Amino acid sequence: MNDSGKPRLEVCLSPALLHLYDTVGTVVVIIDIFRATSTITAALHNGAKSVIPVASVPECIELGNSIENSITAGERDGKVVPGLQYGNSPLEFRPDFIAGKTLVLTTTNGTRLLHMVENADTILIGSFLNLNVLCDYLRGCGKNVLLGCASWKDRFNMEDTLFAGAVVTNIQDEFSINCDSARAARQMYKSSGGDNLLDFLRDSSHYHRLSGYGLQRDLEYCTTPNLHPVIPVLSGTELVIHS
Amino acid sequence: MNDSGKPRLEVCLSPALLHLYDTVGTVVVIIDIFRATSTITAALHNGAKSVIPVASVPECIELGNSIENSITAGERDGKVVPGLQYGNSPLEFRPDFIAGKTLVLTTTNGTRLLHMVENADTILIGSFLNLNVLCDYLRGCGKNVLLGCASWKDRFNMEDTLFAGAVVTNIQDEFSINCDSARAARQMYKSSGGDNLLDFLRDSSHYHRLSGYGLQRDLEYCTTPNLHPVIPVLSGTELVIHS
Repeated sequence: MNDSGKPRLEVCLSPALLHLYDTVGTVVVIIDIFRATSTITAALHNGAKSVIPVASVPECIELGNSIENSITAGERDGKVVPGLQYGNSPLEFRPDFIAGKTLVLTTTNGTRLLHMVENADTILIGSFLNLNVLCDYLRGCGKNVLLGCASWKDRFNMEDTLFAGAVVTNIQDEFSINCDSARAARQMYKSSGGDNLLDFLRDSSHYHRLSGYGLQRDLEYCTTPNLHPVIPVLSGTELVIHS
Repeated sequence: MNDSGKPRLEVCLSPALLHLYDTVGTVVVIIDIFRATSTITAALHNGAKSVIPVASVPECIELGNSIENSITAGERDGKVVPGLQYGNSPLEFRPDFIAGKTLVLTTTNGTRLLHMVENADTILIGSFLNLNVLCDYLRGCGKNVLLGCASWKDRFNMEDTLFAGAVVTNIQDEFSINCDSARAARQMYKSSGGDNLLDFLRDSSHYHRLSGYGLQRDLEYCTTPNLHPVIPVLSGTELVIHS
């Protein structure tokens, strides 16, 4: 809380800047649009029992072996990692396949940021797929909020910032903002016009990289708002649907 | 250089991200619009013999004592630091006062970034005050360019990014850009409309902070393009006018 009586809303543009923010007692939203947080949201809405985010491939394999009815997933450079069963695409985890299963997922950026956050009140997962339901929750939470962009190997990226801007635009009336990252993200979202987000992102590093791997459909899916209206929340080491 | 045959253009949004960029052989532009790099540009154009940027107040005092015809300057929280003679305002260093003198200057952010850069080909100083002459030089330099925002205590800020966006917009045809920070900075500059920059910055952390100190005239001055068409360059430990 601050002088205005409203809680604080801030945006962290890269995990390498996380130390500048006070996460104690804060609701932290992890954002990795292409594709970790989109995939987590889709898998849970499609019936996954839980998603366990892990940092390394060996850890992913080991955990997959020890949990009944689990599947392991992870990509590096657009390909399924040897030893794992599936990739990072949200399109892979349809209801008839994922329902009731535990997804053990390793990703490069989103997982890392999630594990870096300390002493938060709550850690949530944000993506365009759950934009409105997430904003509804944040508006009413009454706590300081930090939107954390997973970025790409610590480098600022367009898509995570654009999503942060969408959230800021939606919830700003309930918060006090004194954070230029939040202002810039909001400005970027305004510039995008708010629809045809993928078109706005067509000249971005991740668009070039992932469309080069033939993942055009993933990019479209991950920029379609509100397909999966659930909020993943970290509970212990697992992500589950926020009740 | 890269596949396109054009040199690389990148933007670093905070000193805390500098390690992500390869500065070897690169032309690095230090950007601290409010107000270090604006003041350096103004002082040199107004006839200062050189500007020596130093990190600490004791160092500033010591160097001031040892250099003939020098003056010491530096602020913290909008006030002249005890022991120094002048503040950080570009308005203080008019020709009749600064001509022929050595300005020993300590600042919080710009100085720090300047000293962090290693093995660059050239380190230049950028501000709206020297925008066009700087862009002319960069367009013809034929080397990789990194625009380094000094930010505010490592936090992203609007004004440094806006300036980076102005430079990207001006010189992009001569460079290859695969850097989302550069794209976002360009987008921000486009959103600003390119004129009335201060109006665009009115809702920014630094605007609020500095106008709270009564520094409105400084803010106007620092966002007026091309008042001081010289390029400060680091030569040893001194900043002098690039010939």
